[in-house]
Amino acid sequence: MHSDSFLDLCRAAIGPQNVLTDAADKAPYLTDWRRRYTGDALAVLRPGTTEEVAAVMHACHAHKLAVVPQGGNTGLCGGATPGAGESAARGVVVLSLQRMNRVRQVDPLNNTITVEAGVILQQLQDVAREHGRLFPLSLAAEGSCTIGGNLSTNAGGTAVLRYGNTRELCLGLEVVNVRGEVWDGLRGLRKDNTGYDLRDLFIGAEGTLGIITAAVMKLFPAPRARVTALAAVKNPRAALALLAIAQSHASAMLTGFELMSAMCIDLVTKHFPQLRYPFSEHHPQLVLLELSDSESEDHARGIFETMMEAAFDAGVVTDAVVAESVQQSRDFWNLREHIPLAQVEEGKNVKHDIAVPISRVADFIETTDTLLQDAFPGSRMVTFGHLGDGNLHYNVSPPAGVDNDQFLKHQDAINLIVHNSVHAHNGSISAEHGLGQLKLEENRRYKSDVELAMMRAIKQALDPQELMNPGKVV
Amino acid sequence: MHSDSFLDLCRAAIGPQNVLTDAADKAPYLTDWRRRYTGDALAVLRPGTTEEVAAVMHACHAHKLAVVPQGGNTGLCGGATPGAGESAARGVVVLSLQRMNRVRQVDPLNNTITVEAGVILQQLQDVAREHGRLFPLSLAAEGSCTIGGNLSTNAGGTAVLRYGNTRELCLGLEVVNVRGEVWDGLRGLRKDNTGYDLRDLFIGAEGTLGIITAAVMKLFPAPRARVTALAAVKNPRAALALLAIAQSHASAMLTGFELMSAMCIDLVTKHFPQLRYPFSEHHPQLVLLELSDSESEDHARGIFETMMEAAFDAGVVTDAVVAESVQQSRDFWNLREHIPLAQVEEGKNVKHDIAVPISRVADFIETTDTLLQDAFPGSRMVTFGHLGDGNLHYNVSPPAGVDNDQFLKHQDAINLIVHNSVHAHNGSISAEHGLGQLKLEENRRYKSDVELAMMRAIKQALDPQELMNPGKVV
Repeated sequence: MHSDSFLDLCRAAIGPQNVLTDAADKAPYLTDWRRRYTGDALAVLRPGTTEEVAAVMHACHAHKLAVVPQGGNTGLCGGATPGAGESAARGVVVLSLQRMNRVRQVDPLNNTITVEAGVILQQLQDVAREHGRLFPLSLAAEGSCTIGGNLSTNAGGTAVLRYGNTRELCLGLEVVNVRGEVWDGLRGLRKDNTGYDLRDLFIGAEGTLGIITAAVMKLFPAPRARVTALAAVKNPRAALALLAIAQSHASAMLTGFELMSAMCIDLVTKHFPQLRYPFSEHHPQLVLLELSDSESEDHARGIFETMMEAAFDAGVVTDAVVAESVQQSRDFWNLREHIPLAQVEEGKNVKHDIAVPISRVADFIETTDTLLQDAFPGSRMVTFGHLGDGNLHYNVSPPAGVDNDQFLKHQDAINLIVHNSVHAHNGSISAEHGLGQLKLEENRRYKSDVELAMMRAIKQALDPQELMNPGKVV
Repeated sequence: MHSDSFLDLCRAAIGPQNVLTDAADKAPYLTDWRRRYTGDALAVLRPGTTEEVAAVMHACHAHKLAVVPQGGNTGLCGGATPGAGESAARGVVVLSLQRMNRVRQVDPLNNTITVEAGVILQQLQDVAREHGRLFPLSLAAEGSCTIGGNLSTNAGGTAVLRYGNTRELCLGLEVVNVRGEVWDGLRGLRKDNTGYDLRDLFIGAEGTLGIITAAVMKLFPAPRARVTALAAVKNPRAALALLAIAQSHASAMLTGFELMSAMCIDLVTKHFPQLRYPFSEHHPQLVLLELSDSESEDHARGIFETMMEAAFDAGVVTDAVVAESVQQSRDFWNLREHIPLAQVEEGKNVKHDIAVPISRVADFIETTDTLLQDAFPGSRMVTFGHLGDGNLHYNVSPPAGVDNDQFLKHQDAINLIVHNSVHAHNGSISAEHGLGQLKLEENRRYKSDVELAMMRAIKQALDPQELMNPGKVV
């Protein structure tokens, strides 16, 4: 059989133990971690080096097999698992990069680290710290997601305000293309203008143009102190005014600016009563601010005091607490980080990962809240996120007393209201999670024909047989 | 005649006064400002709106005419002028974006400005300042270069260390493609993961993939103070050690870190004796450091004191002066900015715009200096540049007493030594000036076949008839 010769080729190239064909062995790679997408695959291939990736890609190309690249399998849009029914139409393999997990080089003077795609994000952070450096990318899945997946989805997280998305943290890539050729673009340069920006084309392409096997990532001097504050504001508009004040006083020291609606705090304190809420009163919106300081904790606290004084004087803030210790800073972040967990406890809701221009966030929330209340009276808004980036997790929970599964039947209608509003506010329906399978169709609704045609032309140019991660992105 | 119907179409679309066919009218657009490249064109077209650009592009496409987009015509690699003999082979037009010079929107809360391609860089800086914001891109030609040209060449300059290249300052683009279709990608979003990164493909493509007509650029809070210092160091290796100390103490406040060899200072003080050299002694290397502070001038000066103390203690710095006034800061920058002018006074030399990993700068200089001294004994090294980015203007002047024009006969041999060494140090032969016509062939020597093939595939995908700025980049 056709597939036997292919599997033999792969076994010879990467060792039989790294060619999984048994259903039980393959299963963990065929379902995303939220268990929304399950596909099938002829095999799961686990190459351990760039040369091995090239060899199996070459074999896949020769056999016209589709390839689904996979990192830590923590994606939220089904980008790293085969589409349902995909392998019925033609052969598909999953190519796991998990064994490519070496740190190739740390260059503290160049402030760079060269890592293979399968390195876990947390490990990368740890190695940076051991060298007195900061790798700033930070997100909920950091204990199991891989840098290759972060690059392929251009992951965001909580430090984008200061350090940018994964794209902005990358200086160079190594990529294996669909024909099994290796592009060595592992350049650790701050300036390089010698042709088209291939690097940024592969970043965020979710494995549909080639396979990222290694990357040169930026490091930063480790800050001497990090101090956090919680500020209470009346509404999102006041939160935006606070952002402008904070940026004026702290500039690049401002490394976190997270919004949390009262509903978020209610859910967190309900499901995690051990977490400490530092105010005596209930507030409609909270903002978590973080300063990273290259001088000292005292200096950061001084900046916070000046900043908050200005914010009180301007009538922007109604209450504020600056963390007095590292532990209290952790406590504040805990409130923010337990929001997704509290949602899990509370039951399913309709989630959105959207961005709008920062100046339009308040308009967006007011307009969209009203549209949703008109259509689904009593819906509860679990709105939180990276306000400093204009990125909200704008989640809609059922009215009190309404069953979650019943409510989820309205998911398409709710998505349409929210995403139409995002579009009307010049926003993005996928700020930091990518498109994957989940938003492929919906994206086509909002993109212009000109843009879609250019995307398809590029796909066609680099993957003419559409073997790379079919059914995703384009 | 074929061209008559084309010109009539253009006159109807953008007005006869904006279709230049007279030789004297066309001349300024057909030669680059350094007068190295002169080509010919059927006409120079000066559309004033995106719709007009689309109309003339549509006409060019219908008539299979090649199009050379042009901004301020200040490029250093001949990217914005037609190639010699190009119009003999087929019809070429120059499409000048200078009339598209409107600031469309300033959004201080989103920290963005939307500008048309023909806006002069200095005007963009001025408008930002009027809104209490900083647009950080800064380079020698800022009084006449356009933001469209800056984007097309991904220009660098003196603030890349903190704010990145033009690429990192751009959030969204409007582009007219080769068929005259308009892509509205003017998104002012910090996070957007809804498909391939077309923006970064057009940035740095030097007009070979489409025409950038407008852009959303990032703004930053204006710093409250800027303070400059000059430090004397023994050699480039010590300068790198100072960089690490400076980054550790000042982090993102460090906005400038420029290296100048003794030879540079000699030339400047020889040709501009009115400029003040602040040291009593002659030093082998100087570093100009700039801090931008969101607090106060005193605070910045305090950081400088701590930093320089650490640098003296570590034996890294032999002398240092912190500017005591805004005027003295200007004086220090004047020394740096007069280096290119002093070179003009001194006579031609062989110039290179190169980058290597920051950690390899000292190795690169030592190795390459030796190679050049072996081949051309007595050559004088006018080495200066953006050390914080690993980007050097590594220029070679003739030995004392040798005629400049005589020496320039060795240009190709010198280029080969320097660029081979750059390549051996994993560097870039064009850090911030692009490829244009000047480095097209040389780039092919150093790029891998895999990378060149991907570049050509993308060119083919977006401009199958090769009408966009032929003979440049690919």
